[in-house]
Amino acid sequence: MEAMKVGLLGLGVVGAGTWHVLNRNAQEIARRAGRGIEVTHVAVRDVAKARSIVGPNMLITDRPEEVVCDPTIEIVVELMGGVTLAYDMVLKAIENGKHVVTANKALLALHGTEIFEAASRKGVMVAFEAAVAGGIPIIKAMREGLTANRIEWVVGIINGTTNYILSEMRTRHLSFAQALSQAQGLGYAEADPTGDVEGIDAAHKLTLLASMAFGIPVQFTGAYIEGISAIEDEDMVQAERLGYRIKLLGITRRRDHGIELRVHPALVPIESLLASVEGPMNAVVVSGDAVGQTLYYGQGAGAEPTASAVVADLVDVTRLHTADPEHRVPHLAFKTNALIDTAILPIDQIVTPYYLRLNVDDQPGVLADISRELAHFRISIESMIQKPTELGGAKLIFLTHQALEADINEAIEAIEKMPFVRSSVMRIRVEALQ
Amino acid sequence: MEAMKVGLLGLGVVGAGTWHVLNRNAQEIARRAGRGIEVTHVAVRDVAKARSIVGPNMLITDRPEEVVCDPTIEIVVELMGGVTLAYDMVLKAIENGKHVVTANKALLALHGTEIFEAASRKGVMVAFEAAVAGGIPIIKAMREGLTANRIEWVVGIINGTTNYILSEMRTRHLSFAQALSQAQGLGYAEADPTGDVEGIDAAHKLTLLASMAFGIPVQFTGAYIEGISAIEDEDMVQAERLGYRIKLLGITRRRDHGIELRVHPALVPIESLLASVEGPMNAVVVSGDAVGQTLYYGQGAGAEPTASAVVADLVDVTRLHTADPEHRVPHLAFKTNALIDTAILPIDQIVTPYYLRLNVDDQPGVLADISRELAHFRISIESMIQKPTELGGAKLIFLTHQALEADINEAIEAIEKMPFVRSSVMRIRVEALQ
Repeated sequence: MEAMKVGLLGLGVVGAGTWHVLNRNAQEIARRAGRGIEVTHVAVRDVAKARSIVGPNMLITDRPEEVVCDPTIEIVVELMGGVTLAYDMVLKAIENGKHVVTANKALLALHGTEIFEAASRKGVMVAFEAAVAGGIPIIKAMREGLTANRIEWVVGIINGTTNYILSEMRTRHLSFAQALSQAQGLGYAEADPTGDVEGIDAAHKLTLLASMAFGIPVQFTGAYIEGISAIEDEDMVQAERLGYRIKLLGITRRRDHGIELRVHPALVPIESLLASVEGPMNAVVVSGDAVGQTLYYGQGAGAEPTASAVVADLVDVTRLHTADPEHRVPHLAFKTNALIDTAILPIDQIVTPYYLRLNVDDQPGVLADISRELAHFRISIESMIQKPTELGGAKLIFLTHQALEADINEAIEAIEKMPFVRSSVMRIRVEALQ
Repeated sequence: MEAMKVGLLGLGVVGAGTWHVLNRNAQEIARRAGRGIEVTHVAVRDVAKARSIVGPNMLITDRPEEVVCDPTIEIVVELMGGVTLAYDMVLKAIENGKHVVTANKALLALHGTEIFEAASRKGVMVAFEAAVAGGIPIIKAMREGLTANRIEWVVGIINGTTNYILSEMRTRHLSFAQALSQAQGLGYAEADPTGDVEGIDAAHKLTLLASMAFGIPVQFTGAYIEGISAIEDEDMVQAERLGYRIKLLGITRRRDHGIELRVHPALVPIESLLASVEGPMNAVVVSGDAVGQTLYYGQGAGAEPTASAVVADLVDVTRLHTADPEHRVPHLAFKTNALIDTAILPIDQIVTPYYLRLNVDDQPGVLADISRELAHFRISIESMIQKPTELGGAKLIFLTHQALEADINEAIEAIEKMPFVRSSVMRIRVEALQ
């Protein structure tokens, strides 16, 4: 049988990785897919550079429209990144009846609903395993492996850059700035690290996971996003003492009145597998009512791990493109007409335990006064550490039971006004994985 | 659209779990599958007991042939267990053009080649996610999620009973017999625990994983199988001191001259995630050339976790039964005509590091003599612990570098003949996850 013909948009790290994996493992892949998968056309900005990677026999253009309009191309792989030209090219490829494989989490988090609807109308597939957690087949688990379940929550370490930074901060007692600079030196963080360290990249991925978990439209704008730049070594140390480790988590959870959708640093129990996920690795825990908790772990970025996911999608499309479109796996796990527009809860409506740290004057009655203030706002304390500091001060660390974020915010505001309180209150949410 | 009609053979723990999950989550499942999935016919030995579970409106029979021959049934779910009647019924269901979903690892490990060939001839699917690692979608990961990769090895904790026993032995310093009896009390082990504790159940599962990893026919008879009944508390303690934990592992690895396929207790590095998999949980690590290592973790047994996998298969079949059979996911990940009959290596041809423990007379020169004997058989020592024991003896523990099992066996035979050696040599393989 003739090989499946693929057009590749973009030949950067992941694009080149995809090219290499498809070539190196061509035989294994054909044994699995039943036919070969061949890149016949590449669109890039720098044609000469691309030529040096893919050799003399490839069609190379700097005009991606040529690829998405080429009648011989059956699958377009979008690895250009960005949400403007990529958006146009993906929609045009769909319009031309081509299946699309993309690693572009930002594009799908922002325009997924429109893109998936266009694909459904044309009866083509848009596959995006590489968009979340790199090489880990988490999309497949969510859309196909766990279909028996009412999913209760998904909690993941889905950004390798921040996990590397937090690991280095913890094990080597570096400041955030030091660890970031080290991550940049090793290529784990970009020159402008904002998208990673401020949690935006994780929120793109979480938005997609939430849709597949709960059968809701993609709604990135509803996500709460907080990065790791405020975390201090002190918090790492105190968390450890309380039996926790600090990780940047994506958390989405079904509640009575809506869906929690939030990215922020959080304390996770030290004995959980998530706490042991170190360096640039990713892991996602999914809790379903039948299966309980399952965890998926692996490399969340990098040329070949991400290419592994891209090529898996190519094999999927190759295997299944003859299936009746009505019976294919729905893009967001649920049939389009079965999506339910459940509300995303505002962050002050979430309920979770909290870690609080503050400096106070070391004088009698301080702890009593603070405890009374917390109780006033319906916040009960699970455990507390008090340590004297220099200059007649004391450091207080509280771990609370489940509390409403709005209550915590009011309590913090009140506590910060107390005369013996010397610092602002450091507040980190706790994820108990329950 | 009318519901997919399912016939259920067996209504034990997993059968009842499947029934409950299908009913409780009927709405979520239909939102994903695009149509309902309905059990219309059940075959059991005890009709009255079944009636009390599934209610008055179900067709119940004690003759499974009725179900597999019923013209209205589209999918037969085989949860009877055993390899005789189940074998007949699965083949008859296939013969009658029905898709089959089964959790029967023994049946597939022993008769998979024949069953998959029959299914391919009839153009029906045989899905078996529940046969390996319960609710963890590891079959899906192997057959679909990692198709880009040349798989190098698969290492898994794929029997919950033995993992529970080893966890209890380690954390509570129980003997094997004590921990087994406790596992039986809690329902984690059966009255006759042989299949679990001697590694046979794990070997059935490993046989299937190996086929999907390397594209080889199922060949259970080639598997090396060793259980955990010989492990002593002493070994748990010494392993921990050396930086390892003892787990019953299924290991399959591609080598130059064949495939390693073996189930036995092994030391795994304490900092690996596998070492942290405790109690009755399962986890599988897959190493691929592009993706690197990925890990899949969850409950490997129990009514609803296993039902989760059965129902996921039902959704898969419902989604994909209209696909051209030629283009469906192949049963063993690779197209039938692309399977390669690579040899399974005999156990004495495997290469791995070893843990050795023995008692000797505490006298000068003993260590030198033993080291010389090991070196004679090309075995080099990575680390060693020597401890005096009562009665003028000493305990020696060695960790070796990679060695050929045949060499280790010869060295042990020679060492056990040395006049100052007081015990037989305890030998446990090490799995470095590399």
